[in-house]
Amino acid sequence: MKILAIETSAKAASVCLCEDEFLIAQSYQNSGLTHSQTILPMCESMLKHCGVALKDVDLIACAAGPGSFTGLRIGLSTAKGLAWSAQKPCCAVSTLEAMAWQLSHVPGEILCAMDARRNQVYNARFVSDGVTLKRLCEDRAIALADLFRELDGKTAQIIVGDGAELCYNYGSTLGAALTLAPPHLRFQSAWGVARAALRRAAEGELTDAQGLNANYIRLSQAERERLERMQK
Amino acid sequence: MKILAIETSAKAASVCLCEDEFLIAQSYQNSGLTHSQTILPMCESMLKHCGVALKDVDLIACAAGPGSFTGLRIGLSTAKGLAWSAQKPCCAVSTLEAMAWQLSHVPGEILCAMDARRNQVYNARFVSDGVTLKRLCEDRAIALADLFRELDGKTAQIIVGDGAELCYNYGSTLGAALTLAPPHLRFQSAWGVARAALRRAAEGELTDAQGLNANYIRLSQAERERLERMQK
Repeated sequence: MKILAIETSAKAASVCLCEDEFLIAQSYQNSGLTHSQTILPMCESMLKHCGVALKDVDLIACAAGPGSFTGLRIGLSTAKGLAWSAQKPCCAVSTLEAMAWQLSHVPGEILCAMDARRNQVYNARFVSDGVTLKRLCEDRAIALADLFRELDGKTAQIIVGDGAELCYNYGSTLGAALTLAPPHLRFQSAWGVARAALRRAAEGELTDAQGLNANYIRLSQAERERLERMQK
Repeated sequence: MKILAIETSAKAASVCLCEDEFLIAQSYQNSGLTHSQTILPMCESMLKHCGVALKDVDLIACAAGPGSFTGLRIGLSTAKGLAWSAQKPCCAVSTLEAMAWQLSHVPGEILCAMDARRNQVYNARFVSDGVTLKRLCEDRAIALADLFRELDGKTAQIIVGDGAELCYNYGSTLGAALTLAPPHLRFQSAWGVARAALRRAAEGELTDAQGLNANYIRLSQAERERLERMQK
């Protein structure tokens, strides 16, 4: 199955083309440029350099959250546009599960973390047997203090995501057994999205362009402030 | 240090831009298209998408062999051209060392293998402590039978490179403890070239456009046949 995957949930942006697990092409960048400027040209260049047309793609996958609200909307809008025009099935993937797949070859526990501001991280925990992943908790926004209260401090954790350093610095002062994912695998990438989508496809959890929706986990700042005003 | 790295030693081709170990951008493809068609447009698109000009790059690194004679020449010619025009220092990197860096976060022995045809592989062996690499032998062309005679069969090996499956299939019948590198890290990539170049730079082993040369390890088919004719 040919999967076109998009990842724009944080500062890094990437697109890839896979044949099942096999990576045919990937374009990745973490240069600080706005995803709205980069993601479509990256997608177009990648497919062109591979000699593959959108009509040859079997599935369009996108990181659907948690993550930057604007980033997710750019990725999902791009995926929706491509899928709608080419009438392709879609798959919304957990950003946290996608980044865990990048480390699924390392046996042990994987701590996925994205900076959610206000001393919180978007987090999920997984355990790998060196081949496949088992989820240990649902995607959530959690205070660093609560996260490290939950962990026993003894089970080694490899930390991945743009919140990895934040967790590492906080947890290390508590004596937790932590390792940072290596620099080339630390940030979310489209390959992880494609890999997670492959599992979703096997479980029959696909949708269409219209059904591709974000999972923000928590309310946006505007919604939160509106709710606070209404409660007053 | 901003490193522009090029990898064209086998079927996959990739370019990346790093700030030391940190991956700013990478464009990778393993689509079967000819490197002469793809590598320069990939390089150009990547730098453009990042808003980085060639003059901002500090070092140009290239996989210098072993590998496909034509592939290496395309990569090295591209690197030479860019480095000569922009007057940048260069670094020729062992293709085998570069691919080992992709797995340097996994403690244990790493077996690097490229298909060298005629039941041989281009091979080097490394051991990782989970952070850095120690080389166990020089780059070489070796018969599969000789390689598995050298290995004790007990020490687990993670195998990386486009010859990984060849080694895995051969060695598994002998009962060797082998693991294939995961699909997103199995093939050589420009990030590994940049990471290896970072070590070369720290050791003062840089050159210029003119000094950037291939290391084919063994004679080309044309040279071999000429030598055989001359010996007759």
